Amino acid sequence: MENNKQFSLKTKLLADYDLANDQDFVSGKRIADRLDQLSKINLTENFGSNRPGYSEGEQAAKKLVAKWMEEAGLTVKFDGAGNVIGRLAGKDDDLPAILTGSHVDSVPNGGHFDGVLGVISALEVVEAWKASGYTPEKPLEIIVFADEEGARFNSGLTGSEAIMNVYDMEQLLQKKDTAGQTFAEVLASNELSIESYQAAARNVDEMEMFVELHIEQGARLEEKGLPVGVVSGIAGPSWLQFTFIGKADHAGNTPMPNRQDALVAASEFIQKVSKLPEQINDSAVATVGKLKVSPNGVNVIPGEVELYVDIRDIYEETRDELIDRIVATGKEVAQNHEVIVKHVENTRVKPIPIAEENQQLLAETLKEFAIEPSYIPSGAGHDAMVLGLKIPVAMIFVQVKQVLVIIRMNGHHWLIVSSAYVS
Amino acid sequence: MENNKQFSLKTKLLADYDLANDQDFVSGKRIADRLDQLSKINLTENFGSNRPGYSEGEQAAKKLVAKWMEEAGLTVKFDGAGNVIGRLAGKDDDLPAILTGSHVDSVPNGGHFDGVLGVISALEVVEAWKASGYTPEKPLEIIVFADEEGARFNSGLTGSEAIMNVYDMEQLLQKKDTAGQTFAEVLASNELSIESYQAAARNVDEMEMFVELHIEQGARLEEKGLPVGVVSGIAGPSWLQFTFIGKADHAGNTPMPNRQDALVAASEFIQKVSKLPEQINDSAVATVGKLKVSPNGVNVIPGEVELYVDIRDIYEETRDELIDRIVATGKEVAQNHEVIVKHVENTRVKPIPIAEENQQLLAETLKEFAIEPSYIPSGAGHDAMVLGLKIPVAMIFVQVKQVLVIIRMNGHHWLIVSSAYVS
Repeated sequence: MENNKQFSLKTKLLADYDLANDQDFVSGKRIADRLDQLSKINLTENFGSNRPGYSEGEQAAKKLVAKWMEEAGLTVKFDGAGNVIGRLAGKDDDLPAILTGSHVDSVPNGGHFDGVLGVISALEVVEAWKASGYTPEKPLEIIVFADEEGARFNSGLTGSEAIMNVYDMEQLLQKKDTAGQTFAEVLASNELSIESYQAAARNVDEMEMFVELHIEQGARLEEKGLPVGVVSGIAGPSWLQFTFIGKADHAGNTPMPNRQDALVAASEFIQKVSKLPEQINDSAVATVGKLKVSPNGVNVIPGEVELYVDIRDIYEETRDELIDRIVATGKEVAQNHEVIVKHVENTRVKPIPIAEENQQLLAETLKEFAIEPSYIPSGAGHDAMVLGLKIPVAMIFVQVKQVLVIIRMNGHHWLIVSSAYVS
Repeated sequence: MENNKQFSLKTKLLADYDLANDQDFVSGKRIADRLDQLSKINLTENFGSNRPGYSEGEQAAKKLVAKWMEEAGLTVKFDGAGNVIGRLAGKDDDLPAILTGSHVDSVPNGGHFDGVLGVISALEVVEAWKASGYTPEKPLEIIVFADEEGARFNSGLTGSEAIMNVYDMEQLLQKKDTAGQTFAEVLASNELSIESYQAAARNVDEMEMFVELHIEQGARLEEKGLPVGVVSGIAGPSWLQFTFIGKADHAGNTPMPNRQDALVAASEFIQKVSKLPEQINDSAVATVGKLKVSPNGVNVIPGEVELYVDIRDIYEETRDELIDRIVATGKEVAQNHEVIVKHVENTRVKPIPIAEENQQLLAETLKEFAIEPSYIPSGAGHDAMVLGLKIPVAMIFVQVKQVLVIIRMNGHHWLIVSSAYVS
């Protein structure tokens, strides 16, 4: 998470990168200025962003982006789910639109590029087109999706799910935020309603594809020294809860061979789980992030350990193979240590593959800019994951330390490669 | 922890074992009855004992034992630390006394034999001597030590430390119980004071040795099918607090090779620690009982793990070797996982060896009763650990499922082998 002090430095460097005079009419200064203005909305003590979905902070950020959209000549509307949609008419405006954008809500004390960069760089593409007098063949829509992070209701992707009509209304109605407000009450505070949320669903025939630019958060690009990368797929997480049950005994009285130590068993499991993904796939990951020992006394052999494994891959088949291997490992380890193991699956989200042809379109554009195409899986969920359920998607990852906007207009697709440099 | 329902069954069986007519004048019925009476003082809902040190429950139990002591012909006094001392004059009463006994306080919902059996069986020895008309050569003292468990102040051995004058007064003065009462206030509620506590210290020249009978809590005797065992030494615990510091990252975004997962490192450490004691000594143990993961989120790679290792052995040299090996393992594991490790030692208690000759005295007596001597380390601390700091000690472990009292009078020492059978 970048803080605002670093951010000010970055935007200053970015402003120096004013490309207004080059062929694409991109203004580094404008991007820097807009990132800076957005970062000041609900800035935290620690120089982070605090703009939960459907908060006043998110509302203010959306209104500011809507103002810029209008200034850039887009037709702007707020839909019934709180999404902002800015549309640029194409030469043939009846053709299905190319969609792009991201989100402006944040986790508590979140970073200033997460979501925001995808919105601002898409907007810069339109600014550059406008400055150069270019009108695209097909309509372009920049969407600011509401409540992507889910900081308020512990879920997220609320705006994109409304557009794609893929939500579970029963679950939405049961949701309450930390202040005890229901989803309906929160919508009402935004002058929205359950009815308007449902009416935000759109016909997929209106959309050709969705391209999302997002900062890469796994430091893979940084490691490779690359400014941008092509997202090869969006991993779907599975959350498995394991409980290892041994026998709590006195740490002094119980000889080593007589023990049924739930933590010794769990620790062998954690070790083995950490080595399984590489046996399955480069893009697969498995993480034990949450763990609780009982009774958790210094001189008591652990009787029970409850832990969660977060398992992800961009391919459903390999992700599910990894799940099976992890479950089998749990059983094997429990047997070796003469303890009991139980597991339940709390979450299983479908991974979204990104079509080879869409990856190739991005890759070719990168090559034109002498950037080696690097294919990177997205471990975290993004709005593109939701749109990918029904329409083709592509995603560009940007190294967070580098900001530079590049624009390509492709005859077949309008391919938006907005990427970023700051050194 | 035995519950009272089981206990009633056991004492019934014990009562059937009435040996009043045999050579030693031991009454199983009396032992059963007394164990039963003590078990009813502060019986919990779950049929356990709840008699913290210096509570009304412990006071009531000590008064009941004092009454039995008086009835058995002992001279009884309560010392300034709340210990009950029952003294039987020897033929030569100026000789140093043989000390025996244990405690009657308990942990919350504690077992009914822990401490109590050592007191009641010692008392039964005196009862049998009285019935047979035997007067010992040397004086015998049965001591009920106050607050052995330390359930009130998270420490324990309070009474025996006063007698042996081995406490840290500064620490005692800082102690507060869960109700916020200071040690001085708690003593005052028992009509004692810091001054009287200090005055409980005794001259070690008055004491020849201390023999304690205690139930064995590690199931070693049960495993071997033996009623009693000879304690080979009392392990001193060392508590080491380790902190593994890695890097908290998003579980989806961070490829496996880029991680500095504090929990994966800690789990390898736990694995290795569990295998070290057997490389050092049969009596050595090491336990990770308490562990905390930060930030402890399902989808966050653990950035920090804090854990405690409880390390024990009956020999200081091997215990300290084990400590060194564990510290070295922590460093090695941290290096392999590219995380940082820090450790501090919170507690280091000296192990108390039991002299070979005292072990042999007990062993020979067991042989006379056709019981194979089995040598067992005591992993937990007992009052004998404190007395052993200054005078010779011996300890007898009794299988909790078996209760039978055996008495030996040895020409050289008065060797008290009180052990227990119930099947």
